[in-house]
Amino acid sequence: MEQVSSFGDTGDGGVDRPALSDNHKAARDWLCSELRERGYTVLVDNIGNVFGCLDLAGPDAPRVMVGSHLDSQPKGGRFDGAYGVVVALTAVETWRREAAECGIAPSCNYVIVDWMNEEGARFQPSLLGSSVYAGSLTRDFALARTDRDGKTVEQELLRTGYLGTDEPPQPDCFLEVHIEGDTALEQAGKRIAPFVRHWGALKIRIEVIGQQNHTGPTPMEDRHDAVLGAAYIIAKVRELADTAAGTLYTSVARVDISPNSPNIVPGKAVLFVELRAPEPDMLEWSEAQLKAALPTLAENASVEAQIIAIDHRPAGKFDQRLVGLAEQGADKFGYPRMRLDTIAGHDAVAVNAVMPAIVIAVPSVNGVIHRCDEYTSPEDLAAGGNVLLDMIRQLDLAGGSLDNAGDVK
Amino acid sequence: MEQVSSFGDTGDGGVDRPALSDNHKAARDWLCSELRERGYTVLVDNIGNVFGCLDLAGPDAPRVMVGSHLDSQPKGGRFDGAYGVVVALTAVETWRREAAECGIAPSCNYVIVDWMNEEGARFQPSLLGSSVYAGSLTRDFALARTDRDGKTVEQELLRTGYLGTDEPPQPDCFLEVHIEGDTALEQAGKRIAPFVRHWGALKIRIEVIGQQNHTGPTPMEDRHDAVLGAAYIIAKVRELADTAAGTLYTSVARVDISPNSPNIVPGKAVLFVELRAPEPDMLEWSEAQLKAALPTLAENASVEAQIIAIDHRPAGKFDQRLVGLAEQGADKFGYPRMRLDTIAGHDAVAVNAVMPAIVIAVPSVNGVIHRCDEYTSPEDLAAGGNVLLDMIRQLDLAGGSLDNAGDVK
Repeated sequence: MEQVSSFGDTGDGGVDRPALSDNHKAARDWLCSELRERGYTVLVDNIGNVFGCLDLAGPDAPRVMVGSHLDSQPKGGRFDGAYGVVVALTAVETWRREAAECGIAPSCNYVIVDWMNEEGARFQPSLLGSSVYAGSLTRDFALARTDRDGKTVEQELLRTGYLGTDEPPQPDCFLEVHIEGDTALEQAGKRIAPFVRHWGALKIRIEVIGQQNHTGPTPMEDRHDAVLGAAYIIAKVRELADTAAGTLYTSVARVDISPNSPNIVPGKAVLFVELRAPEPDMLEWSEAQLKAALPTLAENASVEAQIIAIDHRPAGKFDQRLVGLAEQGADKFGYPRMRLDTIAGHDAVAVNAVMPAIVIAVPSVNGVIHRCDEYTSPEDLAAGGNVLLDMIRQLDLAGGSLDNAGDVK
Repeated sequence: MEQVSSFGDTGDGGVDRPALSDNHKAARDWLCSELRERGYTVLVDNIGNVFGCLDLAGPDAPRVMVGSHLDSQPKGGRFDGAYGVVVALTAVETWRREAAECGIAPSCNYVIVDWMNEEGARFQPSLLGSSVYAGSLTRDFALARTDRDGKTVEQELLRTGYLGTDEPPQPDCFLEVHIEGDTALEQAGKRIAPFVRHWGALKIRIEVIGQQNHTGPTPMEDRHDAVLGAAYIIAKVRELADTAAGTLYTSVARVDISPNSPNIVPGKAVLFVELRAPEPDMLEWSEAQLKAALPTLAENASVEAQIIAIDHRPAGKFDQRLVGLAEQGADKFGYPRMRLDTIAGHDAVAVNAVMPAIVIAVPSVNGVIHRCDEYTSPEDLAAGGNVLLDMIRQLDLAGGSLDNAGDVK
């Protein structure tokens, strides 16, 4: 963790490692070198996901994939994502050594994965690499995403040397360990939580078009102020969450204003709206409410507003066998545990569509995530590692069978 | 106009020449060279105002200052400011030639001025160079202003070579010609308008502090969303203008959001608010209303909001003798004329505090300003020049006396 946190170190405990930045490239280069040193075959697929493949059981053996992502939010924390990659390598290596020491022939092969652009901070949407891998987004769409400066994912993959040509491996399951990013574990006094459901999300981009003019002489009644329209929409988006308290989370966290100069009536504003809910009905309801309200909100500010993109993330369930395996692992170590849903997106949510997958959460102090003061204690980091190691061990001992794993204990 | 418009040409008719940018430096270098070629002494004062001094009547003669500014809004128009500088040089040179041809010994000296950072787009506040010149802002304050990247005015003056050491000239009056930036002239079918009053303005910066967190798992009731607070304030600022229709103009045209990432609850937003009114009472009322509303607006979004800077621009009147002189000039050429107030800031507003000053407006098609399609016809450009030339001629023939000028006609 100390080594990986040096890439993009912001000096205040956090890291600044947006997808395909120089700092991100440095962290990925480091990972590839760590993998190769240990005899892993490093594959890079054509959307820049990195796979470190360890063949322990021959070409036809089941494959277990473990990992997370090395990109971070701009000025984010050091544990979000990177911990999941580091703990994956640590757990697989520990099992490899343990098996060798005990004279056990492993029955599975392993893949350590670092997904490309989980955060979606620099390039939207998030979960980009894992979504292309799972087939829910096309590669062409993903390559064409641009950052604020107009640079595409394709250009930046090329620049950083991660536009690969390798066929990605097709494992039998995917395990991800991640910090929680909320206070539920901490408040309940628990250390381990498998996520059982993932909330659905709608990520909606709304463009508000006004008319650029001087803030001085332009009479108020002639103004078409895109930021005023944006303000009305932001208030409405929050109102939706208040109307459906507890079952709908909403946000407008990014607003791109043009030209954003103190004395020019803004001609354009693009809003990045999120609607999140555990139930598909609630998502549909909130989307319909927002669409219905938009024309009036725009008219009240004498501007035009339209939805220019919607990214649908369906709600769903993680594999129940993997949930059980995580719980058995926690119990062996005496770690207090609970079940949680994840509201945030994780690569395992995308991958869950094509293979059994799970996220196992460890506590994050005060629920902080995406900030420099994000922190998980060494004991909790180790707890996640121990549970992951036990899951790997049980799966391997069961010949890679999810149905049989854990019964062996 | 064609030459000066090549500096920062955006290819769509507009220019991109924010204060102390490379494009701005190129335009200033060009101006200095044009001035020196014609025998003007170029002075640069310690806040980067450029003065081209033409001594025609000896050291003790009255001095007439004419000019405007070469900086533009980002992606602004070509006429705003630059026209005022070009027409100043053209008019003074025309009078110089005319006097020589007629064997008249000029009784005045002339100063062509290019004020530093009129627009306030890159560095706030606007009218920076002219305000320091007039003593309403301190030099230390102005030098310490920073752009979005943290670069100071001082650094950028040094970099562009415009941190001068010359004592600025102290003329007896200041004349500025400018495009109107509104449709009043056009709608009334007029070509010339001296501004008689300048509206007052309050430029208020409000900082909204929330708490950075993940937009996914953070429960709605635990969010402190700075952009939501900003939205409530933006709506309130507009409401003030609607309450006092016609006598108060308001805007929030720039909002700096941090970190402005789609899935992080924004921790901070800085709003750039403007309140403009012709009467001091209305400005006071609107400032009081905003201050009174702020705590509740912030509380409604569970954030904190405070005013971190207020820049007061008092309302005032331009010199009535210069107004009359402009009107006489227009009448001689048969240009339909009217009187207007200026709501926008102009360098002449700042300078008006220390010497008789005026702005003479020419039409801007459709009232467009600060946009690439800003346009004033060649005929209207020439009309502004003819009126300015006539004012210069009358002042010179009157020995520089504002009280006597125009009687000579």
